[in-house]
Amino acid sequence: MGSLGNYSTHNAHLISDQTIGKVITCKAAVAYGPGQPLVVEEIQVDPPQKMEVRIRILFTSICHTDLSAWQGESEAQRMYPRILGHEASGLVESVGEGVTDMEIGDHVVPIFNGECRECDYCKSEKTNLCEKFRVNPFKSTMVNDGKCRFSTKDGKPIYHFLNTSTFSEYTVLDSACVVKIDQNAPLDKMSLLSCGVSTGLGAVWNTANVQAGATLAVFGLGAVGLAVVEGARTRGALRIIGVDINVDKRIKGEAIGITDFINPKDLDKPVHEKIREMTGGGVDYSFECAGNLDVLREAFLSTHDGWGFTVILGIHPTPRLLPLHPMELFDGRRIVGSVFGDFKGKSQLPHFADQCTKGVVKLDEFITHELPFSNINEAFQLLVDGKSLRCLLHL
Amino acid sequence: MGSLGNYSTHNAHLISDQTIGKVITCKAAVAYGPGQPLVVEEIQVDPPQKMEVRIRILFTSICHTDLSAWQGESEAQRMYPRILGHEASGLVESVGEGVTDMEIGDHVVPIFNGECRECDYCKSEKTNLCEKFRVNPFKSTMVNDGKCRFSTKDGKPIYHFLNTSTFSEYTVLDSACVVKIDQNAPLDKMSLLSCGVSTGLGAVWNTANVQAGATLAVFGLGAVGLAVVEGARTRGALRIIGVDINVDKRIKGEAIGITDFINPKDLDKPVHEKIREMTGGGVDYSFECAGNLDVLREAFLSTHDGWGFTVILGIHPTPRLLPLHPMELFDGRRIVGSVFGDFKGKSQLPHFADQCTKGVVKLDEFITHELPFSNINEAFQLLVDGKSLRCLLHL
Repeated sequence: MGSLGNYSTHNAHLISDQTIGKVITCKAAVAYGPGQPLVVEEIQVDPPQKMEVRIRILFTSICHTDLSAWQGESEAQRMYPRILGHEASGLVESVGEGVTDMEIGDHVVPIFNGECRECDYCKSEKTNLCEKFRVNPFKSTMVNDGKCRFSTKDGKPIYHFLNTSTFSEYTVLDSACVVKIDQNAPLDKMSLLSCGVSTGLGAVWNTANVQAGATLAVFGLGAVGLAVVEGARTRGALRIIGVDINVDKRIKGEAIGITDFINPKDLDKPVHEKIREMTGGGVDYSFECAGNLDVLREAFLSTHDGWGFTVILGIHPTPRLLPLHPMELFDGRRIVGSVFGDFKGKSQLPHFADQCTKGVVKLDEFITHELPFSNINEAFQLLVDGKSLRCLLHL
Repeated sequence: MGSLGNYSTHNAHLISDQTIGKVITCKAAVAYGPGQPLVVEEIQVDPPQKMEVRIRILFTSICHTDLSAWQGESEAQRMYPRILGHEASGLVESVGEGVTDMEIGDHVVPIFNGECRECDYCKSEKTNLCEKFRVNPFKSTMVNDGKCRFSTKDGKPIYHFLNTSTFSEYTVLDSACVVKIDQNAPLDKMSLLSCGVSTGLGAVWNTANVQAGATLAVFGLGAVGLAVVEGARTRGALRIIGVDINVDKRIKGEAIGITDFINPKDLDKPVHEKIREMTGGGVDYSFECAGNLDVLREAFLSTHDGWGFTVILGIHPTPRLLPLHPMELFDGRRIVGSVFGDFKGKSQLPHFADQCTKGVVKLDEFITHELPFSNINEAFQLLVDGKSLRCLLHL
C-alpha cells in the first residue's frame, strides 16, 4: 500500500484514504437492457481483492465496442445490469493483497487486454494475448471468485465488462488490466490509450512495424483509422492514403496527416486499382478499420505484390468467411489480425504515454467533444450519429 | 564465354565446344496434347541469345506441376507442342551475350522462379518473386523476343514451360533462371533443388524461420512435405508431427525425421483437436502440403493461438475461398503462402547445395526411382500412381 504523500498534487482531493478497505458508494452509468438509456445512479463498489486494484475514474470515453455491447448485438453478451466502458484514465484509490507495482494515487489507464506477465503468452515476444486477461466480451465477473465487485443499492450484483467497466466513478480491475503511467502525462487524453488510439497506432508501430519512407492506405477514418494515420506520421511514412465514403473525414484526416484522400463513391473503378495506379503497383501496408469484408478485400488488393502487408483492425460480426482465394496468398501479400495494436499493455503503454507527453504523438484531434459524466447517453448518441470521434466524459 | 579448361573432369565428355553458336539436334520428350504420352524424339535447340544460357541437362525429375500441365488441367496452359519439366541439373554448354556469372562447364540447376537481381522485387529483402522471371505457368516463350528456342525437325516451334523446359538433353533458359552450384555438390541430387525440396525446406528455413526446440505439424507427406520435415530436422525442431491419410508415408516420414504420425482416418475427432492435445495447445508451425482447403483449415487450427504460423505450400485449383473467418485471425494465428520456399534462387541455392554436400541436409530418401530418360512416360505413371516421391531420369 502506498501513502497519500505520493498523490499527484492537483488530483489529491479526488481520493481519500478513508475509503480504503470499505465499500464505496458512488455514481455509475448502469445498462439494464439492450439499447435502453444507461441509468446514472448510485451503486456500491467493493474493495479490491487479491491482485486487484480499485480506481477512481476521472475520464472515460466511448468506443464502438461499448456501443455494440449497449445495443446487445450479440445475444451471449446480454448480461444485465452491467457497467460498460473500457476507455478511461484515473487514480489508484487502493490496491489488493499482492499488488506491488502500483500504489495509491498513481495515475493509471485501464486495459481490456491485460498482461499478467507470468503466463506463456506474456512471456512470449510473439503475442500480447494474455492467457487469463485477454479480450473476452463474454466475461462478466472477476477472475478471483467469479463474482461482481459492483452491486445496486439493494444489493443485486452488477456485471463487469471487458475486464474494465469504466462507466463508474470507481471500478475494480485485476492489476493485470491496469497500467501505471507517468504523472506528467495529460491524464484526460490518456483515456484514449485504453483502446482506440492504441489499437490503431500500435498496428503501425508493432504489428506492421512501418518504417520511414513507407506508403500505406487506411480504410475507414474513425478513431482507430486516424490513430493509424498518426502512427504512420510519427514513423515518417512517405504517403498515407485515407479511404472513407464519408467525405467529411478528409478534413480530420488531413489535420492528422493523410497525404491523399479517396472517396470510393467518386471512383469508376475499384479502390485497389486506383491505389495501385497512384503508387506504382500498390502500397506497402494497408489497414482495414471499417469492419466490412468487401473493404477488407480492397485493402488486401491495394498492397504491392511481393511484400504487401494488410492489418485487420475492424470487427467483423458476419458469418461470411474471408473473401480471399488461397492462391492469392502466393503473390506475396500477407494479411494479419491485430488486437490492441499488439501492445503488451503494462510493458509498453508507459513509453507510449511518454511519447504523448513529449508531443511526439499528438492526440488533440481525437477528442471532439467533452461532457459531464451524467450526459453519457448524449455521448452515446453522438457516436451513433457519427458526429464524434471521441467524447470525453468527466467524472 | 568460358573455356573447356574449366570443365568438371568426369562430365567433360558430355559437352563440346563444337556446338557453341550452332543449332543442336538432340532428344527431348515432347508433349503433343493433354494426357497423351510424351514423345521422345529429336528436336532442334537454338543457341542462347542475350542473357540466356544453353544447358546440357544430365538429370531431371518430375513434380506434380509437370503432371498437371501434362494432363492439361488448366485450359490456358494447353500449348502444344511443348517441352515440360522444371526439376533438373546439368552443365552449361554455352552462354549468350552479357552473361558474366556463368561459363561453359559450370554445374547448374534451373529454377522456374528466377532472380534477375535488378528489379525492385529482387532488391527487396521481403520477396523472392522476381518481376520478370517469377513463376508463370502461362508463359510459353522466351522474354527476349517472345519466340521459342526449340523446334521440331520440320521447323515448327515447340513451346517452353515454367522458364525451364528440362525434359530435353539441351534447353535454353534466361540466365536469371540458372543457378551455378559448386562442382563438388552431387549433381544427380541437385535436381531436387529446382523445385520440390527447395519449396519444402525453404518454407522452414526462410518463410517460417523455424528455430531449435520448435514444434510443428506437416500436412501431406509427399516430396514437399518430407522436405519440410528435413528442414525442420536440420533446424533442431523438438517435435515434427506428420499427417497423411496414406499410412505408408509413415515409414518414409520416420526415416527423415517425423517424431509422430497421425492418420486422420484413425481419429474420432478433427486432427487439430488431436494435435492440440498432444502439444499443450497446438504446434508453433504448421505446413499445408496437400492442396486441399479442408486440410488447410485443420493445419491453421492445429497451431497454438497467440503465435501459430501456418505456411501454405499446396496448390489449390479450386474456386473455393479460404475457409477462415476474419475474426479467427484475432487469435494471433497467422497464415501465409510460400513460393519456392522463399529462396532467392541465384543468391541462396548455392549455400543450400553446400549444405547438401556437407551432409547437413540429406537428400537420399527423396529419390525413390531412377530410369533412363527414354522411360519418361513410365516415370510419369509412377507419380500418377503415387508410387514414387521422385524418379530421377538420366539423360
